[in-house]
Amino acid sequence: MSDNKVLSDVLRNASAALNVDLGAIIHNYTLIKSQSSTAECAAVVKANAYGLGMDVIAPTLYNEAGCNTFFVANLVEAVKLHAILPTAIIYVFNGLFEDQIETYVENNIRPILSDPGQIELWNGKKEACAIHFDTGINRLGLSEQQAEEFLNGSPDLNLSLVMSHLVRSEEKGHPTNAAQLNRFKKITDELSNIPASLSNSGGVFLGPEYHFDLLRPGIMLYGGNPGLPQLPSGIKNAVEVKGKILQIRHLEIGETVGYNAIWKAERPSKIAVINVGYADGQLKVADLKTQVFVAGHHATIVGKTSMDMVAVDITGPEFDQITIKDEVELIGTNITLEMACEVSTLGQYEILTGIGQRYAKTYKSL
Amino acid sequence: MSDNKVLSDVLRNASAALNVDLGAIIHNYTLIKSQSSTAECAAVVKANAYGLGMDVIAPTLYNEAGCNTFFVANLVEAVKLHAILPTAIIYVFNGLFEDQIETYVENNIRPILSDPGQIELWNGKKEACAIHFDTGINRLGLSEQQAEEFLNGSPDLNLSLVMSHLVRSEEKGHPTNAAQLNRFKKITDELSNIPASLSNSGGVFLGPEYHFDLLRPGIMLYGGNPGLPQLPSGIKNAVEVKGKILQIRHLEIGETVGYNAIWKAERPSKIAVINVGYADGQLKVADLKTQVFVAGHHATIVGKTSMDMVAVDITGPEFDQITIKDEVELIGTNITLEMACEVSTLGQYEILTGIGQRYAKTYKSL
Repeated sequence: MSDNKVLSDVLRNASAALNVDLGAIIHNYTLIKSQSSTAECAAVVKANAYGLGMDVIAPTLYNEAGCNTFFVANLVEAVKLHAILPTAIIYVFNGLFEDQIETYVENNIRPILSDPGQIELWNGKKEACAIHFDTGINRLGLSEQQAEEFLNGSPDLNLSLVMSHLVRSEEKGHPTNAAQLNRFKKITDELSNIPASLSNSGGVFLGPEYHFDLLRPGIMLYGGNPGLPQLPSGIKNAVEVKGKILQIRHLEIGETVGYNAIWKAERPSKIAVINVGYADGQLKVADLKTQVFVAGHHATIVGKTSMDMVAVDITGPEFDQITIKDEVELIGTNITLEMACEVSTLGQYEILTGIGQRYAKTYKSL
Repeated sequence: MSDNKVLSDVLRNASAALNVDLGAIIHNYTLIKSQSSTAECAAVVKANAYGLGMDVIAPTLYNEAGCNTFFVANLVEAVKLHAILPTAIIYVFNGLFEDQIETYVENNIRPILSDPGQIELWNGKKEACAIHFDTGINRLGLSEQQAEEFLNGSPDLNLSLVMSHLVRSEEKGHPTNAAQLNRFKKITDELSNIPASLSNSGGVFLGPEYHFDLLRPGIMLYGGNPGLPQLPSGIKNAVEVKGKILQIRHLEIGETVGYNAIWKAERPSKIAVINVGYADGQLKVADLKTQVFVAGHHATIVGKTSMDMVAVDITGPEFDQITIKDEVELIGTNITLEMACEVSTLGQYEILTGIGQRYAKTYKSL
């Protein structure tokens, strides 16, 4: 159920559509990069480029936007990316394990070493690596004490990057940001000849002192909001999810829709059944609240979402002209990621990575 | 980010693991089939066999359990399945569209016709098809009036199946089941020479009058509960999700874990960071409540789940011997699907289909 770029038109048409706007991603990359006059800008493409297709998005950023450095979560993603972009610089957040050394070296991939054991494994190698210094998120990276020991030691590493990760970069003015910045600066002061990176999407907009030498945005490349009160001006949505109508039904008063009959027609009703379900990321927690956009108007999901389909209430004169050929937007210009989150327990990140594998993907170029 | 059965051992080991027990699936199929002495038993393998891998599970059921008939959601899934099992009978729930006729015929796939327009499109063909009669779910299928018109007409179809779908099959004794059964019986009485199918997993356990000629279980094949008060005796879990420890950290009182610092150490704490995140189906809504099983004990997720990892509190003498080589069970024998649902907004169906593409899949044979 994998890559479906090679599907025939008939089969593409039988699926719901995931449309990714590569022009918007390049635009967002360029806008984010322009926040710093000196720092390089990498791209975070882990989790299959946030669910949107690393195999297309990474080469686009590399070839058309001048992005040379990529971050992925694990070695599997890195090996896949290296096969696509053999000359790109690829860092792996998850760190290094003993059995992986050869694979890292052979594929010219750079581990981000997270603890003294990992540093020991790479010590003496001429190949480049990074070190993750924890400054408060307590997820991965050297603790304060481990950092001190490292800085006082004499490791034999070809360090191409030191990095840390922000806890609440989207909350400008929160003292945690300044505290992390100070902790990180103490390290970069000691390692002043090594390029440094602190800022994810949110961090880029905390100001130049957070930029160091390498920005590493993720979600904002794809038009998502990391949690800022509002998206920085100019960031464009890059994602469109569109379903297909399978059937239009007419219901009498009192008839119910879907499993467990959680919705009952209070008036003679017209229902469109759409080929998107929870297997495609449309979770049941958003039932009865989710809006879609069809035939120029908003409409609401009714009944329980099924695995492969969901029903939409299209009762009313504004939908008189609707046919099964009308596309149904679930995410896009009229149903923003923000709107999709408001009716769900999901955040924008989870909506993107939850989109699933069943869509026919189309990549719109510049 | 697709099929990873071909990964090297190093790369498999760099991923979290999805282990699927094919023996359990065959066992469940056989147990479900045994509920009827006369009906055939199909398998529902839509949405990539509920997220577990149609390409392995369907051939296993076909070759080792004698399952000849499969149901999928859309034509894309059907074409993929036909390529794997060219002699299997494949039905498509989504129905028929004008541009798909040739693809259905060429691939020997049977459409489940859902409305008069679709019936018209297939009329006169010698190839087999099914008709979906709605009996109250109001999702897909002929309405009561359309059914009457169909039965009074003289269609020229090679009907191999008539089917309907239950609204609340897991609520034994609910009058909706009897009402749907009666509506369906009126149709099958008129079409008594055509095989009929009504029961999904829950329906199979409503009793023999719901069995007709073809059972079509889905979730229970995989060990999931469709919502019954308890799983029928003998149904085995077939799914195991296991993460890998990336790092073990020691926290002082007052230190926080993860984004936005939603968890603070109230005692000196030991934390294991695991390589499973919301991109792998571990949603943030279950934060601070999710249990995992590691080193022989249950432990709780702390802090916000990240895209690619999550932290687990392993403070206490019971975890003194833990190392990064210990596997962490997120779903399996000790953390059942039921337990995973209790702390989430997700149902068992959504947990399975949300498992994501990043796991190294292992299929355990009989």
